[in-house]
Amino acid sequence: MKLNIALLPGDGIGPEVTAQAVKVLKAIAMEFNHVFTFQKALVGASAIDKTGNPLPEETISICKNADAVLFGAIGDTKYDNDPDAKIRPEQGLLGIRKELGLYTNIRPIIAYEDLLSKSSLKVKQIKDTNILIYRELTGGIYFGERYLSEDGNIASDVCKYERFEIERITHLAFKAAQSRRNKLTLVDKANVLESSRLWRRIVKEIAPQYPNVKVNYTYIDNAAMELIIKPRQFDVILTENMFGDILSEEASVIVGSIGLLASASIGDKHAMFEPIHGAYTKAANKGIANPIASILSAAMLLDHFGLDEEASLVREGVDKSLKLHITTPDLNNKYDNITTTKVGDFIEDFIQNPDETNLN
Amino acid sequence: MKLNIALLPGDGIGPEVTAQAVKVLKAIAMEFNHVFTFQKALVGASAIDKTGNPLPEETISICKNADAVLFGAIGDTKYDNDPDAKIRPEQGLLGIRKELGLYTNIRPIIAYEDLLSKSSLKVKQIKDTNILIYRELTGGIYFGERYLSEDGNIASDVCKYERFEIERITHLAFKAAQSRRNKLTLVDKANVLESSRLWRRIVKEIAPQYPNVKVNYTYIDNAAMELIIKPRQFDVILTENMFGDILSEEASVIVGSIGLLASASIGDKHAMFEPIHGAYTKAANKGIANPIASILSAAMLLDHFGLDEEASLVREGVDKSLKLHITTPDLNNKYDNITTTKVGDFIEDFIQNPDETNLN
Ligand SMILES: CC(C)[C@H](C(=O)O)[C@@H](O)C(=O)O
Ligand SMILES: CC(C)[C@H](C(=O)O)[C@@H](O)C(=O)O
Repeated sequence: MKLNIALLPGDGIGPEVTAQAVKVLKAIAMEFNHVFTFQKALVGASAIDKTGNPLPEETISICKNADAVLFGAIGDTKYDNDPDAKIRPEQGLLGIRKELGLYTNIRPIIAYEDLLSKSSLKVKQIKDTNILIYRELTGGIYFGERYLSEDGNIASDVCKYERFEIERITHLAFKAAQSRRNKLTLVDKANVLESSRLWRRIVKEIAPQYPNVKVNYTYIDNAAMELIIKPRQFDVILTENMFGDILSEEASVIVGSIGLLASASIGDKHAMFEPIHGAYTKAANKGIANPIASILSAAMLLDHFGLDEEASLVREGVDKSLKLHITTPDLNNKYDNITTTKVGDFIEDFIQNPDETNLN
Repeated sequence: MKLNIALLPGDGIGPEVTAQAVKVLKAIAMEFNHVFTFQKALVGASAIDKTGNPLPEETISICKNADAVLFGAIGDTKYDNDPDAKIRPEQGLLGIRKELGLYTNIRPIIAYEDLLSKSSLKVKQIKDTNILIYRELTGGIYFGERYLSEDGNIASDVCKYERFEIERITHLAFKAAQSRRNKLTLVDKANVLESSRLWRRIVKEIAPQYPNVKVNYTYIDNAAMELIIKPRQFDVILTENMFGDILSEEASVIVGSIGLLASASIGDKHAMFEPIHGAYTKAANKGIANPIASILSAAMLLDHFGLDEEASLVREGVDKSLKLHITTPDLNNKYDNITTTKVGDFIEDFIQNPDETNLN
C-alpha cells in the first residue's frame, strides 16, 4: 500500500515522539512492502515563531492532500501564562481538526497487564479495563462564538450543537459498541444544559436502530467519579467535545501514564492520529518523553487503512517493551537510562525481528 | 445563639439524611444552650408534585427570612430520562442558589485516616489529602442563556462571566489559602475559552494582594488527572461553576464515598449547607443513605456562625463513627445493619456523652 502521510510534529515533546512513530512506520513499510512517504508541516507555537500563524495555509493543503496526518503536540507555557495573547498555538490544533472535518475522536483506555501496578488506582480496581471514548471533536464550546467586551470585563463562550453533528458520531459509537461488548454510555449534563438534552434526545432516538446495544445515560460529574470507582462498567463512552477532553485525560490514571494514550480523529474525508498528551515543554529535548502514545497512534493509523497485521505487530512491540521495562522514566523504576529514542529503537527492532528482540 | 434554619429536604434520600443533620443540630443546641428552630419548605421534584413548581415562592421567602438553609438533595430519575421536560427539579436547586446569591460553594476534600483503605486509590496516594474546592456557584454555563430551535435541531448554552463575579470568589479563595497552606490553584480552560482567559487574567491581577500565596494555573483536563495522581499537591482549588461540579464529584474517590462530602454555599447575605451527593432515588427509604455528608454540612453551618467548639464536637462524633465502623453500607464491610438513622443516633449520643459513646 502507498500512503502519503502528513507529519505535524508541533511543539515541545511533539517532534521527539513523532520521530519514534515515524521510525516504527518506516520499519513496518519495509517489512510489509508498503510505501509510506512523509511530508512535514508546521503547526502550533513553532509555526507562530516561523510564520506568525499557528496553522499556515501550506500546512492545511499538505494535510488535505495526504492520506493521513500524524500529529505530535502543540502548546507553549509562554502562551499558557498570557491570557491576552491573540494568536495561540491551540488555534493550530483546533483549526486543523475543523479544516479536515475530524468530528470523531476515538481514545482507547486500556489497562495493560504489565502496568497495573503503575496506576494510582488499586490493581483490582482497574484490571481488564477496556474503554473506547468517542469524543465529538469539531463542535460544542470549542468552536462556539466567543465574546470579550471592549472594557475586558465580560467574557463568554457558546456551547452549540446541531442534530447532524450529534447523529454522525452517535452512529459510529453505536457501531463500535456492537463490535465490542454492546454497551454505550452517553455522558452529558442534561439536568442543566439544553445542548446536553439535545444529545440525550438524539441518542434515545437512534438507540432502537441498535437493539443489541445497552445504552446508559449519565451526568459528567457522576461519570468523573464512576470512571475511577468502577472503570470496568464502561465499554463505549460517547460524549461532547469538552467532557471528552476532561474524561479522557482523567482516564489516563487507569492506564498509568498519559504518555500511553493514543487517539484517532476521524472525519468523512480525512483522518489524523494524535497522542492525547500535550507539548510538555518542560520535558522537551531531555530524552524522557514517552513515545508510546505516538507509536500507538501510528498503530491506529494502520488500523484505519485495514492493515491489521501491521497494527498488531506494532502493538506487540509496545507490549513487549512494557513487559521488558524498556520504557521512559514515567513508567520505569527498574532502569534509569531508557530514552525516548531507545524505546523507538526497541520497537523498530522488534518489528524487524519479532522473535529475537531483547534489551541491548 | 438563636438560629432560624430553613430546612429543604427535597427528593430521594434528601429527607432521610437531613433528618439526621437536624437531630445532630438539636443535640448541639441542647448541650450548648442555643435555640435552633427549623422551618421546612418544599423544593425539587417533591415540590413539583405538590405545587407544580420546583421552587415555590413560599420556599424562597422562608429561605430569605432564615439565618441559614439546610438543603438535602433534588432530582428524580423520571426527569433524568425525559430530556423534553420543561419543568425540572434542578431548577429548584439552581433557583435557590441564584435567589439567595450563593456565589461561593466550598467543598472540603479530606482523606480520613480511618477510611484510607476504602478509596479506589492507593493509600499512599491519598494519605493526608486536604483540599478546599472553591466553586463559583451562580454564574457560568449554569446560568447563561439557553436556546433550542423551533424544530428542535439546534441547541446552545452560554458560559458567561463578569469581572465582579470572578473577583468576589477569588478574594475569598485567597483568604482561605492564607489560613491554610498558602497555595491556590486556578483550574480553567484558558487555552480554549474566552471566559477562562478572563478568570486567569483577574486571578493574576489579584494575586499580588496576597503575596504569601503561591498561585498555580492549570487546565481542567490536566487537573482531572492530577487530582487523582497527586492530590496532596492541592490546597485551595478555585474554579468556575461547571469545572467545580466535575472536579468535586471526582474528588469523592479520594475520600472513599460521595456520601461523605459536605459543602457550604455562601453569599453576601445568605448561606446554605448542602451535601454534594444527589437524590439517589434508588436508595431512598431503604435506610442505606449515608447521612455524614449532611451532618458535616451542618458542621459547616456551625462554623459559619463562629460556633467552633460545637462544629468540632460534631466532627469528632463523625470521626468516632468512622473509627468504630458505625457507618452505612457504602463504607461498611464489618457490620451490615447500620442504618442511616443509627449513624445519626450514634453522633447524637456522642454529642450528649462525648466520653462514653460506643456502639450499642
Ligand atoms: C490542547 C487542547 C486544545 C486539546 C483539547 O482540549 O482538545 C488537548 O487537551 C486535547 O485533548 O487534544
Ligand atoms: C443537581 C445538579 C444541578 C448539581 C450541580 O450540577 O450543581 C449537583 O450536581 C451539585 O453538584 O450540586
